[in-house]
Formats: sequence, C-alpha cells, structure tokens
Amino acid sequence: MLEPERIIRLEDDAVVLLDQRRLPDEEVELSCRSAAEVADAIRTLAVRCAPAIGVAAAYGLALAARRGEDLDAADRVLRESRPTAVNLAWALDEMGRCDGDPAERAQEIHREEVERCRRMAEHAATLLEPGTRALTHCNAGGLATGGYGTAVGALRVAWEHGLLAHVLVDETRPLLQGARLTAWELEEAGIPHSVIADSAAGLMMARGEVDAVLTGADRIAANGDTANKIGTYSVAVLAEHHGLPLYVVAPSSTVALSTATGAGIPIEERSGDEVTARFAARNPAFDVTPAELVAAIVTEHGVHRAPYSGSLAGAMVV
Amino acid sequence: MLEPERIIRLEDDAVVLLDQRRLPDEEVELSCRSAAEVADAIRTLAVRCAPAIGVAAAYGLALAARRGEDLDAADRVLRESRPTAVNLAWALDEMGRCDGDPAERAQEIHREEVERCRRMAEHAATLLEPGTRALTHCNAGGLATGGYGTAVGALRVAWEHGLLAHVLVDETRPLLQGARLTAWELEEAGIPHSVIADSAAGLMMARGEVDAVLTGADRIAANGDTANKIGTYSVAVLAEHHGLPLYVVAPSSTVALSTATGAGIPIEERSGDEVTARFAARNPAFDVTPAELVAAIVTEHGVHRAPYSGSLAGAMVV
Repeated sequence: MLEPERIIRLEDDAVVLLDQRRLPDEEVELSCRSAAEVADAIRTLAVRCAPAIGVAAAYGLALAARRGEDLDAADRVLRESRPTAVNLAWALDEMGRCDGDPAERAQEIHREEVERCRRMAEHAATLLEPGTRALTHCNAGGLATGGYGTAVGALRVAWEHGLLAHVLVDETRPLLQGARLTAWELEEAGIPHSVIADSAAGLMMARGEVDAVLTGADRIAANGDTANKIGTYSVAVLAEHHGLPLYVVAPSSTVALSTATGAGIPIEERSGDEVTARFAARNPAFDVTPAELVAAIVTEHGVHRAPYSGSLAGAMVV
Repeated sequence: MLEPERIIRLEDDAVVLLDQRRLPDEEVELSCRSAAEVADAIRTLAVRCAPAIGVAAAYGLALAARRGEDLDAADRVLRESRPTAVNLAWALDEMGRCDGDPAERAQEIHREEVERCRRMAEHAATLLEPGTRALTHCNAGGLATGGYGTAVGALRVAWEHGLLAHVLVDETRPLLQGARLTAWELEEAGIPHSVIADSAAGLMMARGEVDAVLTGADRIAANGDTANKIGTYSVAVLAEHHGLPLYVVAPSSTVALSTATGAGIPIEERSGDEVTARFAARNPAFDVTPAELVAAIVTEHGVHRAPYSGSLAGAMVV
C-alpha cells in the first residue's frame, strides 16, 4: 500500500518527499529543509501534478512558520515555483487564511486531498463490472495527488472490491509516466498490469482485451471537454470506435466553469528534445478530449453524465 | 539523395551495408566478406525489412560464387538468417535459377527493387493534392527496400512534384524506426518533417494539420486487410474519425492472395523488454488494419480501390 506519508510528509525540520524523478529505479527520499528547498523540489519535478504540488507547498509554508522564516517571502518563492498549477495557489491561500497551527492545517489539506480521491474512486468503481480489464494513460495516481490517486485510485477501489481483473498501462511517451510511475504504483498495490506502447492500445481494444478506459484530467471545461496528457484524445477516439466507455476521474477543483469549452484551454508545447534531440520534433504535452467521447466524469461529488453543462455546474454549486 | 548503393552494394570482396543499427547517430558501413557474414548482418538487423533483406541475400550468394564457396551451404545459411522474410526466399530462388553472372543477376534484383518502388511511388503521388501535409508511421523507406522506399518513396516523388508541404513522422515505439530511420531519410532528402510521439497523431489530426496518411505494409490479405507495424491500426482509426485517407504503399509481393482476411495473419509478440525491462509488458510488433479503413492500396501495378478482393487479384494476375 502506498501510504500518503510515503509520498510526502512534514517532519520536525524538513518536508520529506519521495523523489519521483528517480522512480522506478530507486526509492529515494528528498529532505527539503526550507521553503526555498521545497520550491526547488517543485520546480525540478521531484514532486509533480497539481494536487501533490498543493500539498507540498502547504507543508513548505508550515515548515517556514516553524523555522521562523519570513512568511511573505516563503509564500512568494513557493507560489512562483510552478505558476500553472492551480492547486498551488489554492493551498497557499488556504494556509494564509489559517489562524491555528500551520502544521496541523497543512496535514489537514493533505488528509482532505486523500479523502477526496477516495470518495471519487468509490463513485468511479460503481461504473465497473466484475472482471473489468481496464486501460489507463499517464499517471493519475497517488504520486500525482499525495497518496491515493484519481483514475489509479478508482483502480485501487475496484481491485479491493474484486471488480478488476487487469490493467493495461500506456507507457505515455515522451516522459513515460505510465511505464515509470503508474506501473510502479500498481506493482506496489499488487494489481496485475502490463505496460504497452501507446500505439498498441488500438490492437488491444480490437482484440477485445479492454472493457473500460480510465484517465485523470488536468482541466475540465464547463461543457465537459477534458484536457489531459497528450494521447488521451487518441485513446478516447479508439475507445469510441470499439464501443468502450471512457471515464474521467478528477477532483472538482479541476472543473473550470469559467472555461466554456475545450477550445479555451491552451495546450502547452514543450521542447521537442523530449521526443528526439536529433531531428526536428513537435511536442504538445496535452490534448483535449471533446465531451461527446467521455462516458462519465467522476468527481468527489459523484458521477456526472452528459449534458455536462448541467451536471457539472449543479454539482460544483453543492 | 539516398543512392541505392549507399544502402547496400557488392564490391570485389565484400557486400557492403549501411549499418542501420547505428543510425542516425553514426553512418557506419559494414563489410561482409562471406555469405555467412551477410547472414549474420541480416540476423542481427544491420539490414532489415523484407525487400532489403532479399537484395542483401542475392548479393551474399553472388559474393559466395565469386569466392568459390559451397553454394548449397551459402544458400542455406542465408535462407535461415531470417525465416519469415518472404523476399529472402524469393531472391535466393531467383539466384538459383540464374545461368549467367551471379553478380549481374544480384544487381538486377536490386535495380528492379528500386524501380518497383519508384513505380508505386509515382502511382501513389497521383493521390496527393498540392500542399499535402502527410503523416507516416514506422520506416517504409529506402533503408527498408534497398534504396527508394514504398510510403517514403511516395513522399519523395510527391516532394519532387511539388505536392508535399510537410511530413509528420510517428516516432514508432518501441524501436523508434520513425524517429531514427524515417526522420534520417527525410533529412537526407531535404523534405521538411517533424517527429511526434505516436500518441500526438490524434491531436495533430484534430487541429487540421494532416491531409493524408501514408504507410507501408508487411502483408496484405486478399480482401485488403493490411498488417503493418504496431500502431498503424490506431492511426487508421484516427484517420477515419477525422475523415482523412489512409494510403497503403507496398510491392505486389506483399499481397498474399492465399490469405483470405487479416484474421489469418499471425501477429508476432516480441519481448516486453523492448517496452520496459522493469515491469511486466506486452509487445505485439504488428497489427492489422481492416480493409474498410484503407482508402487505397498502391502497388507497382497501380492504385487499387475497394472492393480489394477484385482489384488486388486482378492486378496480381497481370
């Protein structure tokens, strides 16, 4: 079992992180002894993905308070470490509003993150039949969320409930989050899995070896259009072609009601060197899956179905 | 320009091959000084893909004749070097029937292979509009065929005719034939190109950055079902979803009229270590694209359209 404190925890004089850059080859802990060192860990991707970054930043500010650092400066260095992660600003704002013990508030933020994942995972598992052979893309796991995971959380619950037979893990080029991180998490959880080249997903579906696709999301527009790691859209088209459901599992904080459709979500284009350093390359890091290819969106509030403009907005108001 | 003799040629005392295992980092020639050394080069993938292997074997037998080797033994060691490549047996049978100079016959086989590619490429180019932005998968290039290429040959001709604007090259995991070999060939030919992760093909099509998909084929069933490198099927489904044509460019020797449908084509499952050595992995090396996803099949005889059961069989009889 991947305990949340194994991913990230506050100790007396440090925020201790499982260094995700070294996985799966080595399990190395990184001790950050100041807010600036936590910010460095975020910037250099030792900890990655919005929810986990939010937790790390909250612990970073709690550490700064304990050490008597200038809290405005600590807030600033953490806030600037990864400007696009929405949960980072949210967690720091929460810490700023805290009147009590900062360490307790940070631990609460972490605990709430794990509980939120657990709730959405329970909702998602209701969508799966016994014997499900799932396919997932990228790492929507405990490493990304500080302990439990969104899509991988759903796989954990499905496995506990005896609903899951096997997981196919897209390796997720170019950075291989599937082959490195998701496979590691599934191995830790004892869930049967096989890594495949991203391009083998079509054949596996055609052979009838997939029953459902589960992914996370980086941002969900008001109409249900979903931005996620590059390749999610290809998997979604393949799933539709084979009559398979795609379930998106993500916290409600991912839903951006102010973004009307996926057309309003910018796609980060990263360095082509991540694909190949030898030739010209294009490297879009995300893509957008239109809502009509998504069978259901699952948040901690429950299972949302199309039309998402109603089902998402209603749930977010709750 | 990638001259055929740069890929493979017969010298006085050796068959000289461009070592494809070292590309694109190094252009190293491998001199094979006996039939057994040519067989080794085939076995260890210094030269790969059925047409190029056939040419190498023909030169290998010509070298054996020149050196006064036992020709039965030379034939045997070459024939067993890569038992699944149909062109290997065909080329050796041709050499066995030769009454004249073996070196001349081998050169003729090589020249015919290049001319056949050139003919199918000219046919394929008639399918493309000016300004075409093409996408290709794997390496159906000069390296695979001894000098000109099938799908890449079609891109060469389209470029010469001013029809081609740009080529997106799927990197083609797990062995990266696109990122290593096709990108190298396009660079040599001066054709604008960008390598992409296989999983980015869907986004590129959704953005309207692709006009046509061109691939080679390893084997084509009588009904037009086409086996090719893993991932071709995924690209075919994506192309159909976006209303884009998929053109398969392959020599008529690839058409197996005795194989009724793709269901009769075995899929080689290679070691999972090619995907990841750390976790369990599945590694199917090929997939089958059903004929209904193929807009046209192009051989040296011309452009074949559905229903392929008639158009392919008719052409093969010619």
